[in-house]
Amino acid sequence: MELETLRHGIEDLVKARDLRRVRDSLLELPAPDVSEFLRGLSPEDKTIVFRVLPRELATQTFSYLDPDDQKELLTTLGDERFAVILNEMSPDDRTALLEEFPAPASRKLLDLLSKEERTVALTLLGYPENSVGRLMTPDFVEVQLSWTVSDVLTHIRKHGRESDTLNMLYVVDEEGRLVDSIRLRAILLSSPDKKMEDLLTNQYPSLNSMDDQEVAVQVFKKYDRAVLAVVDSQNHMLGVVTFDDILDVAEEEATEDIQKLGAVEALDEPYIKTPIFELVKKRARWLIVLFVGEMLTATAMGFYESQIQRAVVLALFIPLIISSGGNSGSQAATLIIRALAVGEITVKDWYNVMRREIFAGLMLGTILGIIGFLRIAVWSSFNSIYGPHWFLVGLSVGFSLLGVVMWGTISGSMLPLLLKRLGADPATSSAPFVATLVDVTGLVLYFTIASFLLGGVLL
Amino acid sequence: MELETLRHGIEDLVKARDLRRVRDSLLELPAPDVSEFLRGLSPEDKTIVFRVLPRELATQTFSYLDPDDQKELLTTLGDERFAVILNEMSPDDRTALLEEFPAPASRKLLDLLSKEERTVALTLLGYPENSVGRLMTPDFVEVQLSWTVSDVLTHIRKHGRESDTLNMLYVVDEEGRLVDSIRLRAILLSSPDKKMEDLLTNQYPSLNSMDDQEVAVQVFKKYDRAVLAVVDSQNHMLGVVTFDDILDVAEEEATEDIQKLGAVEALDEPYIKTPIFELVKKRARWLIVLFVGEMLTATAMGFYESQIQRAVVLALFIPLIISSGGNSGSQAATLIIRALAVGEITVKDWYNVMRREIFAGLMLGTILGIIGFLRIAVWSSFNSIYGPHWFLVGLSVGFSLLGVVMWGTISGSMLPLLLKRLGADPATSSAPFVATLVDVTGLVLYFTIASFLLGGVLL
Repeated sequence: MELETLRHGIEDLVKARDLRRVRDSLLELPAPDVSEFLRGLSPEDKTIVFRVLPRELATQTFSYLDPDDQKELLTTLGDERFAVILNEMSPDDRTALLEEFPAPASRKLLDLLSKEERTVALTLLGYPENSVGRLMTPDFVEVQLSWTVSDVLTHIRKHGRESDTLNMLYVVDEEGRLVDSIRLRAILLSSPDKKMEDLLTNQYPSLNSMDDQEVAVQVFKKYDRAVLAVVDSQNHMLGVVTFDDILDVAEEEATEDIQKLGAVEALDEPYIKTPIFELVKKRARWLIVLFVGEMLTATAMGFYESQIQRAVVLALFIPLIISSGGNSGSQAATLIIRALAVGEITVKDWYNVMRREIFAGLMLGTILGIIGFLRIAVWSSFNSIYGPHWFLVGLSVGFSLLGVVMWGTISGSMLPLLLKRLGADPATSSAPFVATLVDVTGLVLYFTIASFLLGGVLL
Repeated sequence: MELETLRHGIEDLVKARDLRRVRDSLLELPAPDVSEFLRGLSPEDKTIVFRVLPRELATQTFSYLDPDDQKELLTTLGDERFAVILNEMSPDDRTALLEEFPAPASRKLLDLLSKEERTVALTLLGYPENSVGRLMTPDFVEVQLSWTVSDVLTHIRKHGRESDTLNMLYVVDEEGRLVDSIRLRAILLSSPDKKMEDLLTNQYPSLNSMDDQEVAVQVFKKYDRAVLAVVDSQNHMLGVVTFDDILDVAEEEATEDIQKLGAVEALDEPYIKTPIFELVKKRARWLIVLFVGEMLTATAMGFYESQIQRAVVLALFIPLIISSGGNSGSQAATLIIRALAVGEITVKDWYNVMRREIFAGLMLGTILGIIGFLRIAVWSSFNSIYGPHWFLVGLSVGFSLLGVVMWGTISGSMLPLLLKRLGADPATSSAPFVATLVDVTGLVLYFTIASFLLGGVLL
């Protein structure tokens, strides 16, 4: 609330172009709040305000901005001012920014970097997209096995300022291979003449630079560390990944899974910033695929046209039956996809899952089947809408519901596991795909059961 | 891979009951790996192995176990051994464990605590469920404004061992009100005679103990800190929350949202550990609600029974039309719900969202409408399944698709915003609810358009 008042105050100063006081007010705020303030300004004001920030605060603030705002500022700031920021940004944030640009623009930006920083940036960009390497920063404190606590403290006082992640020290051997990670506090609590060798904890969980970022999230969750070492396949220390990037990755992964579950291709940008044609494209593809799949329902129903002609009453329950199958299928698919994503189950658990889902499907199908039958029975005691054979119609609907719900839960739970087994992403449209599958088969099931029960009576 | 081999080795030792070597092997592993190893064992082996762990490793390992495994061990360990662990656990982990028990069992456990620890535990349990207070640990380093760097270092050497979060020091005034947070590294990099007053950064983002845990996730994301201070409404320093709890909260929130999107009530436990009847109950409730809602489709179709009788061909496209509305509605609802959850949009953006969705619906509806019409036109050039009036039937289907897709995107995007505005959780079953709504209205739309176009011809 206080921030809100402050924000309005500063906004008034910006309007009045009292830049000196704008600057003084912003100096009171931490960089994340300054960047939040900038986000709300018009592009022109954004540039003006950003220019008055002192260098260090400007760099920090820039890091907290969204890539879109960063790009916007980049075009208005001018190369010289921008070069300063780019050189001072922490390497992992810089990688994230450079990733946003197409190759030619990205190369132009790399030219703004000092030779040293350019080497760092190129190395990080050399790792595959979505790999741990892209999240990494090479700013960390490396200490040698043979050093004493007082050597380490001297080293930190000398080189510590550069490092973003001083809380954890990485002990390496002569070849630069990771031997241990030691908390800074363990150093502080030890006597100055102790050697690193004596402090080894033998606990140095690490990530491989080529690992997928999803793996990194799981490792962070397991070890509860704020920083993790990144090594190559020979265990050479390359850099560190910090938890703030991991929190972002975890959120992005969840967003992607949610969007895929909703039959949308994962968006590259926030919803509100995604260009409208892009948004349509991301939705059209799956909508068309599902539509074409769903056309099979028209084909399937074509086969039963004469039955429908003879017993129109059967048509009335088609939406009810297929949507129940779809809903139960979505439930199962959603539960299994999420359980797979957070590592609660693996493909190996398929049998256990199937047993549970068969049972759940049986229960749920029975409940819906009974409700469906009762609805027809109760209605029929008041009027004759469902005809003289309402009892058999009710039975057909009831048994179809049981069958379609069971089929929905089984296919909804098994399809994601199958996709995972085949190396595909289980979230990719499983839920709507299951719904389409169950729609088509549900129709066939319904008319088969009806033909059997009502054959010779209505059909 | 290496861990896997090691695990098998230790498993063999457990089978052979060579507990001495089991202990020695486990001592080589960090606590998270030990707990992962325990998780795979039978209940009996779990207890046996746990008993041989030295005290400190046992406590740490216990903290990393799932609540279920913790409960299991609790029943087999015996009060005495358990009391030691419970007293030594970090207070936030202990809160999480105590939360799992019903009140009487929880009280029994509290009796195992020392007077001091019991006071801490009771205070933490006093905060509302899902509040920041429940995630908090009171282990932090508090320093006074007037202290020098060397005072602080002496204080840390003396009291530092107790604190889980030494990386950040909290500066308080005489009344215990938070004045600043200073990184340990800033202390290390300063000369010993500097006072805290001179080191103030004026940057101390903090959480309120009564805040919702979701708020905490957003604040962590904004400030990129690994630890955040927790204060009361008078800004008195109460404790700290660490990022590892936040990562868990973020994952849980995403899981809940995903489950709600899939029309399942949020599960309290992982899928595979949820008792089967519980699982059925969590699914049955929404499935029944949706089923009852979907019954309206049967009612709606009842009104059009005579039309269907006269033109059975219309019935063939019912599943296609209503599922397209449902799919486009789910897409919109999913996108909006997630954008709301991660704070990309707020209720205030409703007009902007509506404009986008009307446009998207128009485009998507036109695409599906054209495909639908073409399908009927192409089929009809080969055979006569759609009758002599296929052109008008095709037009009816095409325009209905346009209408139903637009209606789906609009209601799918507006309903979550409306729910949020009313103070309800937008994720709660929005997507399936939208699908049901669109199913019923889609039918009415279809038959209305068909009556208009085919009136006097087929109807």
